[in-house]
Amino acid sequence: QKDADSIRAEAAIASQTNLAKVKAFPINAAKKITVAGYTQVRYQALEETGKIDGFDIRRARVDLKGTFSPYWGYRLQFDLAGTPKLIDAYAELKLNDYFNFTIGQAKIPFSLENLASSTKLELIDRSQAVEALVARGKDVGGNQNGRDIGILLGGTILKLKDRPVIDYRLGVYNGAGINTVDNNEGKDIAARLIVHPVVGLDISAAYYDGSRFVPEVKTGTVVTTPSKTVNRDRFGLDLSYDLKNFSLRSEYISGKDDQTEREGYYVLGGYYFFQKKVQLVAKYDFYDTDKSKPDNASTWYVLGANYNFNANTKLQFNYSIKQEEGTSIDNNFANVQLQIGF
Amino acid sequence: QKDADSIRAEAAIASQTNLAKVKAFPINAAKKITVAGYTQVRYQALEETGKIDGFDIRRARVDLKGTFSPYWGYRLQFDLAGTPKLIDAYAELKLNDYFNFTIGQAKIPFSLENLASSTKLELIDRSQAVEALVARGKDVGGNQNGRDIGILLGGTILKLKDRPVIDYRLGVYNGAGINTVDNNEGKDIAARLIVHPVVGLDISAAYYDGSRFVPEVKTGTVVTTPSKTVNRDRFGLDLSYDLKNFSLRSEYISGKDDQTEREGYYVLGGYYFFQKKVQLVAKYDFYDTDKSKPDNASTWYVLGANYNFNANTKLQFNYSIKQEEGTSIDNNFANVQLQIGF
Amino acid sequence: QKDADSIRAEAAIASQTNLAKVKAFPINAAKKITVAGYTQVRYQALEETGKIDGFDIRRARVDLKGTFSPYWGYRLQFDLAGTPKLIDAYAELKLNDYFNFTIGQAKIPFSLENLASSTKLELIDRSQAVEALVARGKDVGGNQNGRDIGILLGGTILKLKDRPVIDYRLGVYNGAGINTVDNNEGKDIAARLIVHPVVGLDISAAYYDGSRFVPEVKTGTVVTTPSKTVNRDRFGLDLSYDLKNFSLRSEYISGKDDQTEREGYYVLGGYYFFQKKVQLVAKYDFYDTDKSKPDNASTWYVLGANYNFNANTKLQFNYSIKQEEGTSIDNNFANVQLQIGF
Repeated sequence: QKDADSIRAEAAIASQTNLAKVKAFPINAAKKITVAGYTQVRYQALEETGKIDGFDIRRARVDLKGTFSPYWGYRLQFDLAGTPKLIDAYAELKLNDYFNFTIGQAKIPFSLENLASSTKLELIDRSQAVEALVARGKDVGGNQNGRDIGILLGGTILKLKDRPVIDYRLGVYNGAGINTVDNNEGKDIAARLIVHPVVGLDISAAYYDGSRFVPEVKTGTVVTTPSKTVNRDRFGLDLSYDLKNFSLRSEYISGKDDQTEREGYYVLGGYYFFQKKVQLVAKYDFYDTDKSKPDNASTWYVLGANYNFNANTKLQFNYSIKQEEGTSIDNNFANVQLQIGF
Repeated sequence: QKDADSIRAEAAIASQTNLAKVKAFPINAAKKITVAGYTQVRYQALEETGKIDGFDIRRARVDLKGTFSPYWGYRLQFDLAGTPKLIDAYAELKLNDYFNFTIGQAKIPFSLENLASSTKLELIDRSQAVEALVARGKDVGGNQNGRDIGILLGGTILKLKDRPVIDYRLGVYNGAGINTVDNNEGKDIAARLIVHPVVGLDISAAYYDGSRFVPEVKTGTVVTTPSKTVNRDRFGLDLSYDLKNFSLRSEYISGKDDQTEREGYYVLGGYYFFQKKVQLVAKYDFYDTDKSKPDNASTWYVLGANYNFNANTKLQFNYSIKQEEGTSIDNNFANVQLQIGF
Repeated sequence: QKDADSIRAEAAIASQTNLAKVKAFPINAAKKITVAGYTQVRYQALEETGKIDGFDIRRARVDLKGTFSPYWGYRLQFDLAGTPKLIDAYAELKLNDYFNFTIGQAKIPFSLENLASSTKLELIDRSQAVEALVARGKDVGGNQNGRDIGILLGGTILKLKDRPVIDYRLGVYNGAGINTVDNNEGKDIAARLIVHPVVGLDISAAYYDGSRFVPEVKTGTVVTTPSKTVNRDRFGLDLSYDLKNFSLRSEYISGKDDQTEREGYYVLGGYYFFQKKVQLVAKYDFYDTDKSKPDNASTWYVLGANYNFNANTKLQFNYSIKQEEGTSIDNNFANVQLQIGF
């Protein structure tokens, strides 16, 4: 019955699978390693003129992780969607609860939503301010997947009854993004302080002091604007609260790119139903791309429903109502995303 | 004795292997996953002036597959040869024998030879019509490895004594190919009906109703030809028959790209000798790239011999006699391909 | 206590890890396969004006290897750092101690330092002559990671008391480098003879007879220089000696690119301390990029210290004093590299 589809041409996959069943060997390594992976298949329906509805493979990740000794850990994650690229490549050195180093390419310690795995997000897309200010798709430095190359020191500052109450992160980074070398001598600094007043509640403040290299502009062979290094600073506050079926997330992020000041914030609430099979979510998401100018902010109202088939398979529906300051355009959109992984 | 080659510099690989033997850990995942992979090393000797003989790595695939529950399956396959890229990334939802969904990037349900794994092909290269009309190297839409992004529904229509006799496939796709987003609002439709009259014999008919986006053409800043969407339709019939040591494959495919009508067909016969160690193959392969014009069809006669060292290692020799309508050119070629996998 | 850092956003990784612990399945394959991998995170501090100090992910490798039968072996290695690419993809056919074939993309049998795995190098960077003459970063043919596509035959010529005393390698390659097809009809030949007079001592001589395709140069539509094929020949001698805590490596390489003759050599000594936890290394490294011209050679003095945290984790410090013939420039540099793998 399982072979119902087994015409010869299409049986290739099945026969390989069967072969694997008949005689299978565990794949070995010299150290204890786990592999995880997931794929997100998305369909977007966009109201805006000129934007194309359609399917895409949004992420197709493979993730290798291992704890090699009481001190050393390792992670290597790559994404095969679109143009394949390395996402994470770092060593972890865990001295104790208070001092831990992450060395290599990894997430910068900034923004709740940035630090959350995309597999765990309540909504399909991250918020406007996170996309624009935290080394993601709309940041001046291009999409770095919220990551950079450098060294992060982190740990607990204060414990009460063995429960961490205050944690910290302190990082130094190239600031030039992932999968490349640095392009200026200045290094970026990131700092983050996390307070856990009660179980389930996390409140954080973070600061990022960066510099960005802007290459020279030429007209023909004449340098019309010389290269320069400009500010790329960020400040953020975020809050995360989980109580039984209820979830609350909120962030405020401000940024300064050269002379331009930007800011945004969001509030997201979610509630689980039917033994956590279904989650309904709503988000208010505001972002102002230049505080000194009028009519360039936008407010998004996002409604979402998640269905968890099982621990590894999830279907997400989102509808986003997008409102622009000044002249509004028809640009609402609906999203459906199927996520499956192991 | 195994260490005969162990001068220090070249012992690196061996010592890593030894290390793995000394203390090896199975690599774990949260779900049951199998990994497969294979490499094809090819040497081509081409008679045609200006074509270069030489080696290449034709495919270097890694393939992750898992059945996560009675309902959900997963596949992630990527190719590292040339420019690395994602090949397959899909979820499978198996409701029953009659309704199964494949969601993501996967093969389109068209053409026997397209649907056959390249590891199982009797000859090194696919036929002309399949390369030109089924989203492969010579298709107007570029090489998509016979795949697209979308949703496929498939299953059995009719069973007799628990043996499937009629199967179907029905898919909707972007039509823009793999590892990209869609470029037009129209979605492509693929349908395929497979009949299994007796064991070993499969007869199929397939239809593909597609549209292709052609970008505007500019001369300087003036749009000389505006962008447009044109037909990309396909129709195919195929047959596959296996009886003991004998194999027969045949296909007819016609296609319409905008106003151009194309068609091609092939007949392939193979026979196994020496307990299936050796297989001899012959193929007649015709393709007409524009039915309305003379002297643009070509007929290839391909002779092949396959030697199976073991279940995972195969050596293939091919000789192709290529004949062109009208002015013929000297373009016969010989191919040797070693395939090894796990 | 291990969960000290577990604020929700940053707990994603940890929770995945925990999940894997709770219910973990070994990943299976149809054949016995081992996986290895490593990452090198580097920080460079460069004295030279205009060169930027900073972090980078130098290598992020994943390496699959298997011995499938007494005769057949397999290797697939890819590097995810920067632009992901395939490094090794080959089959090994081991007939006996005397005749072994390596078929596919693999290291060419030339240069001690080229053949050494980058995980085993005593210093962070390879020597000038190796980088410039052995299909690496400064070779005329571009960086091919010391590899090419072709067939290598190798084995033992002479054994005394079951110890190999003389080994050989003989290869034929495209000569066009990795992950591409050939660009000229000529094939390159490589030969290497390795003598092991006593245990721990290897002395080798190697020759490489290559040709390189130089594309035509156009000014507008006029071909000012037609395409041509020029010599790319190499000759090398190398020596490797290990005795208890002491290591000695030395190479001489000369090369001829078209009419230009080049040569270089190095001598490296290393000594282990503290049960091989620490290794101190010094290297004299000379390279002359054109023997017929004055003032274009450079001499590097490199000092290194390696600290082995464990078998898979290593920290390397290097300081390079670079002296140029003729006008000297300030271009000394310091390197730190953390290597972790499994």
